[in-house]
Amino acid sequence: MPTIVVDVMPKAELLDPQGKAVAGALARLGVESFSGVRIGKRFELTVDGPVDDAVLEQVRDIAADVLSNSVIEDVVGVEVVE
Amino acid sequence: MPTIVVDVMPKAELLDPQGKAVAGALARLGVESFSGVRIGKRFELTVDGPVDDAVLEQVRDIAADVLSNSVIEDVVGVEVVE
Repeated sequence: MPTIVVDVMPKAELLDPQGKAVAGALARLGVESFSGVRIGKRFELTVDGPVDDAVLEQVRDIAADVLSNSVIEDVVGVEVVE
Repeated sequence: MPTIVVDVMPKAELLDPQGKAVAGALARLGVESFSGVRIGKRFELTVDGPVDDAVLEQVRDIAADVLSNSVIEDVVGVEVVE
């Protein structure tokens, strides 16, 4: 069955304490290649039936209204896989 | 600066209570197109300097050792963007 992936990230202008914690952990482990880490969410929606424009439109609405909090997060990707 | 995206999802054989909650919320909202929702994490690592094979290898090691818990999660993607 087709899957639609929705990616949600914290807005760029907001602090991301979880990402800062991971960046600090990497620095303590001696990994120096990275200047920043940000952590967001990845939703995989399994679709019943074929993916058409109506389903994609519905997913975009859900992504904006249900899957993300538009005050602090941006939907950075909606794509069909498989 | 280049960014490497690491996607981590709960293993397929595990329950995902957060995803189940979202699937239930969508059903209550009258959205019937989806048979399942699973929720994972998306890490964006900002790289200092160019991305070469050594950096990618390092990211794969970090993804397996630090960014995911291999008992309950799988790393489903490591890709360079920008």
